[in-house]
Amino acid sequence: MKLFTSNRTVIASALALLVATPVIAKIPVLNPDKTSEALISFKVPMTNRNIVESEIVAAQKAWGDALVAISTTHEQKGIGAAKSLAENVIDGAYGYQFGPVLFKPTLTATPQTFRTTKAGALAYFVGGDPAFPRDTGFALGGWRKVEVRNVAILLSGNTATTMGNVSITDKSNKVTTVDKTWTYMKDDNGKLRIVVHHSSLPYTGK
Amino acid sequence: MKLFTSNRTVIASALALLVATPVIAKIPVLNPDKTSEALISFKVPMTNRNIVESEIVAAQKAWGDALVAISTTHEQKGIGAAKSLAENVIDGAYGYQFGPVLFKPTLTATPQTFRTTKAGALAYFVGGDPAFPRDTGFALGGWRKVEVRNVAILLSGNTATTMGNVSITDKSNKVTTVDKTWTYMKDDNGKLRIVVHHSSLPYTGK
Amino acid sequence: MKLFTSNRTVIASALALLVATPVIAKIPVLNPDKTSEALISFKVPMTNRNIVESEIVAAQKAWGDALVAISTTHEQKGIGAAKSLAENVIDGAYGYQFGPVLFKPTLTATPQTFRTTKAGALAYFVGGDPAFPRDTGFALGGWRKVEVRNVAILLSGNTATTMGNVSITDKSNKVTTVDKTWTYMKDDNGKLRIVVHHSSLPYTGK
Amino acid sequence: MKLFTSNRTVIASALALLVATPVIAKIPVLNPDKTSEALISFKVPMTNRNIVESEIVAAQKAWGDALVAISTTHEQKGIGAAKSLAENVIDGAYGYQFGPVLFKPTLTATPQTFRTTKAGALAYFVGGDPAFPRDTGFALGGWRKVEVRNVAILLSGNTATTMGNVSITDKSNKVTTVDKTWTYMKDDNGKLRIVVHHSSLPYTGK
Repeated sequence: MKLFTSNRTVIASALALLVATPVIAKIPVLNPDKTSEALISFKVPMTNRNIVESEIVAAQKAWGDALVAISTTHEQKGIGAAKSLAENVIDGAYGYQFGPVLFKPTLTATPQTFRTTKAGALAYFVGGDPAFPRDTGFALGGWRKVEVRNVAILLSGNTATTMGNVSITDKSNKVTTVDKTWTYMKDDNGKLRIVVHHSSLPYTGK
Repeated sequence: MKLFTSNRTVIASALALLVATPVIAKIPVLNPDKTSEALISFKVPMTNRNIVESEIVAAQKAWGDALVAISTTHEQKGIGAAKSLAENVIDGAYGYQFGPVLFKPTLTATPQTFRTTKAGALAYFVGGDPAFPRDTGFALGGWRKVEVRNVAILLSGNTATTMGNVSITDKSNKVTTVDKTWTYMKDDNGKLRIVVHHSSLPYTGK
Repeated sequence: MKLFTSNRTVIASALALLVATPVIAKIPVLNPDKTSEALISFKVPMTNRNIVESEIVAAQKAWGDALVAISTTHEQKGIGAAKSLAENVIDGAYGYQFGPVLFKPTLTATPQTFRTTKAGALAYFVGGDPAFPRDTGFALGGWRKVEVRNVAILLSGNTATTMGNVSITDKSNKVTTVDKTWTYMKDDNGKLRIVVHHSSLPYTGK
Repeated sequence: MKLFTSNRTVIASALALLVATPVIAKIPVLNPDKTSEALISFKVPMTNRNIVESEIVAAQKAWGDALVAISTTHEQKGIGAAKSLAENVIDGAYGYQFGPVLFKPTLTATPQTFRTTKAGALAYFVGGDPAFPRDTGFALGGWRKVEVRNVAILLSGNTATTMGNVSITDKSNKVTTVDKTWTYMKDDNGKLRIVVHHSSLPYTGK
């Protein structure tokens, strides 16, 4: 029964709710699995697989914090520790366990533009992989701050997509801003994982 | 730009929001498609395909109201008007345009237990179809009131499922209670449509 | 790269495919993460979260096999072994880890009709739980064979719903047929789990 | 009953199927809404909301064909006809009716990088909108051929995302290749609509 506790409210707050949203008052809820059948009104126990905006905001903040952490770990503890951390970050924040991730990093080029495997993502973040000879380690850039500005969000069940700008500031206060699309998928533990990540430098043309 | 208006809040209320949920304050939002780049904080424009509980409550109330309306239309205007109304109700509340609906009405039996076509649903509600000779018209039962009691809800993107009891009261105040499962699918216009409907009389055992 | 191997085909079979479906020939696929940029055509690496019909058929067969196994385990090894097995079956085949399961078993009645918790499901299958005093153990009924006949299926991403009849045969060759709705949700390991289960005896009315 | 016809197979082909996939032979299917109860095996009627790869391939080809058509219409019939066509293309191929589309075109820059409204998309494709003064009309570039190379695909119910390269060739045989992410959503009529579109020029770095 533990699962339902957080969804339940005491009668007092349920009554308060009913005042505000009278339509719910017409749909009282049976106490499931109980021997008393009294029509006590409380919120309906619910399995909810949908992503909400606050989860997205938290996932974006965690991505930024992780990027800064890899940079500072690199400076303080060296490349070995930075690589270990990056591997943990990828395992925790991306969805490579579901299959290929649709990842187009900011600074990759043909013929290795797309990093659909975990190895390709790790090489991009910390470099040092002879299979990806041009990668010098994007996450080792001395990053100190990450700011996310979403311009629009698509909520679609256990996936959600954001588009907008991400600005990252390095230790010399230089700011780089990119155009970014992320799609998250909520896993069985309720954690959002990046399954699509397209990042690009702004168009400067004409 | 009309689409976004309802998502936007004036700066004053945005500030109020930021006090309550400081994490959002770290993620200001760019004004899309605007020549001013000032970081005015407002809610992010959003495409949201997920079903929320209030939409379910409204759909259930609409189903009950429609059942009562078919009964009273039958009594006041005859079977022709009742049949027309039932057809409109099925067109508006069920998802037969998507393909077969998984519909097991309360009072159907083999070999016509399942009503996966619109014709089968209409015959169940108002009878009179020689292809469904046992149907006498469930919706013509003099129904006056419908009460829905959900015991649990599953939210899963543009579908949602409810399980619980539905009690219907006829004009002589006789109450019939059934066990009911409904799955709704949100259509392109934002309307919930029944795509699964399993209704059964309670087990009276042994 | 292991994940992609099964999606790849050798050039020979790719060419065979292109003959049959010429539209694909216009959309060759880059070899991701490779230093060679030759446009070798193979199937696109894919993350696929959708349930397909064969997975449903396998899950239904597994449910039937489990019911028979609980019955025969009970007869051969006693109630303790049967209860252990039932617990494993519920853990493996239902989705109680996601929250409440929308479960209306065939033979339950008010006030304990709905079994939204694992404890309620276990009591229904093997009985012996004083919190559910009417449960005598449905799975202990000497079941020998389970046959599933779907009348319609709804495929909707990582969920799918079936409706139809399930016939179960006991050791004296008595057959019981019920009307059944199951909704499955695919978990992170690719396993289908029952998140909605509405079972009812056929209407025998009038 | 029309909806089900395509799912049904005559007994002969059903038998052929059963030989190849014996597990299905154990799950015969009731003929729904029929007075005969014989267990004739045929495919189960199905409502299927999931996107499959062939639908994606067709949608990508249609996008490329539309781009070429706007260019040639412009050359042959002038800007008015091109603008009308572009408007039809946006109405038919994008999902602006669902809310903001997450659209980052290849050649837009701050402060009008993102085109979450239909007006912003139209201005990008054909120019001439004083509200988007830098837009000169991307689709008017004399395009003659579009080639799509997907590197990975994510299938997730009624949405699907592709990532890869798109190469477009103009009338002087100059080829421009971009990195492209598209997310499609299947509408109620079964048509795929673009709800996310992130396009960027390749990184030419250092």
